[in-house]
Amino acid sequence: MYDIIIVGGGPAGITAGIYAVRAGRKTLLVEKGILGGQIAFADMVENYTGFLAIHGLELAEKFKEHAKKVGVEILDAEVTRVESLGNKKLVKTNKGDYETSAVIIASGATQKTLDVKGGKEFANKGFYYCAVCDGPLFVGKNVVVVGGGDSAVKESLFLANIVNSVTIVHRRDKLRAEKINQELAFANKKIKFIWNSTVEEITGEKRVEKVRIRNLKTNEVTDFPTDAIFIYIGLKPTTDFIDVKKNEKGLIITDEFMNTNIQGIYAAGCCRAHSLRQLITSAGEGAVAAMMASEYIESLEHAKAK
Amino acid sequence: MYDIIIVGGGPAGITAGIYAVRAGRKTLLVEKGILGGQIAFADMVENYTGFLAIHGLELAEKFKEHAKKVGVEILDAEVTRVESLGNKKLVKTNKGDYETSAVIIASGATQKTLDVKGGKEFANKGFYYCAVCDGPLFVGKNVVVVGGGDSAVKESLFLANIVNSVTIVHRRDKLRAEKINQELAFANKKIKFIWNSTVEEITGEKRVEKVRIRNLKTNEVTDFPTDAIFIYIGLKPTTDFIDVKKNEKGLIITDEFMNTNIQGIYAAGCCRAHSLRQLITSAGEGAVAAMMASEYIESLEHAKAK
Repeated sequence: MYDIIIVGGGPAGITAGIYAVRAGRKTLLVEKGILGGQIAFADMVENYTGFLAIHGLELAEKFKEHAKKVGVEILDAEVTRVESLGNKKLVKTNKGDYETSAVIIASGATQKTLDVKGGKEFANKGFYYCAVCDGPLFVGKNVVVVGGGDSAVKESLFLANIVNSVTIVHRRDKLRAEKINQELAFANKKIKFIWNSTVEEITGEKRVEKVRIRNLKTNEVTDFPTDAIFIYIGLKPTTDFIDVKKNEKGLIITDEFMNTNIQGIYAAGCCRAHSLRQLITSAGEGAVAAMMASEYIESLEHAKAK
Repeated sequence: MYDIIIVGGGPAGITAGIYAVRAGRKTLLVEKGILGGQIAFADMVENYTGFLAIHGLELAEKFKEHAKKVGVEILDAEVTRVESLGNKKLVKTNKGDYETSAVIIASGATQKTLDVKGGKEFANKGFYYCAVCDGPLFVGKNVVVVGGGDSAVKESLFLANIVNSVTIVHRRDKLRAEKINQELAFANKKIKFIWNSTVEEITGEKRVEKVRIRNLKTNEVTDFPTDAIFIYIGLKPTTDFIDVKKNEKGLIITDEFMNTNIQGIYAAGCCRAHSLRQLITSAGEGAVAAMMASEYIESLEHAKAK
């Protein structure tokens, strides 16, 4: 029987683990992939306070070392189901089932990838999935954003404030984003739109130089010059294994203390609806979740003793 | 005219600065003391994910370097007043007044210090102000906590889960903490109480070994052996210079996106009522505040253009 089981070993999960163990809680962290999460795929990280510039893989390695040094028990397995049986929770994995008092869901989310010729080749060389992370590299440059939902439009607004121009390529003839964000984007002189179109190929010598855009109505193909391309065609959280309150995208809804609608189950990081989805914020959320889980266990023990 | 002025250069303020500048916002950070905030006074920091163990002063230095590298403009001055004039805010300092669209309050809070013989000598050698930070050094040991409010009791509960025994020394004959926390503390077998008493002196060879406790009713003095002493006699936020909604302690009330009750004014870190007051959470809150401030400015600019 564990006190706290953490699902996911990214920045939120690892920080939750560090705080949980330091709080004296018997803690298990379950991760099916590599510890460190999405950071491991980032090129340079320049916005995690204290590390002026560090390779994603190197930072992921430091996170992993930190968790191990503090003594977080780590299980290399996939969580298939989390069930709440009142004060006890059951975490089912492909390597066995585990009982625990509290669960912290830090299972993350993945951006839907744009499966396009040149996409892999130019990853981190002008081809990105995070404007807040990598946009600042393109001060005064021209960039393309693919997508038409809220993320695509909000990140375009973010980019417009830094770069020379943002061209949103969207496969429909209107945006799906919230009305206020649409309004802001349409009013922004730096943001242009290419409607009814998809990006078919990315080309360049060493870095992205052009994207081939196909108009889905006319079938016309254009080679559009750009310094970078940012993809926002959907966010897929890893939250199917648990029945807690989620939004329409499957992101988990919590209060500001990371409480889900089920007592003793917490969520932190990219799988959480209101997360900023930044390294530093996910880590912070993990710490909050662990402290709240620890306080919850305190009250459980007290109730039992009564 | 600035886009964003940040009051305070601790983890929250510096991270806000990094995010604000990277978002393309003209940003000024005002700090009257040393950049890095309270971390500079910490001995070893072992719970800031990624840094396995680092001296507080060294980490503060890294934070400062990071802000400077990103290009955060820094003003060495004291903020005397922040006024909201509708869409414009006025930040008054002892070195002049500055106009801005948004303000992020990251001015921190200080623990009231226990002015006691030996307090300075044993700082970080058994004498501490943060159980979550330094408690894990005392696994299986005996510790003293001074105070009777919510912080004192909550941190005692935290410690009780790690150490052998916690003795709460309180100058009154009852606790001021929330009823639920009092109940938990009274029920916890590891927590003992010494009522109507103060700590007068701290002694030891190289580290804390004993505390001299005086009973205020009987005047009796006892040398009480302990491995560490944690002080929680009050938290004093630095928030007098601004009129936003605060709680009874002067801590600023925000929603989960760091919005205060005044549009365009945000709070992050230790001066915020619901903050966990940890390095990693303060930094995360700073990032959220900066992104929210940046979005707010976006909407201001849009409204103006209309």
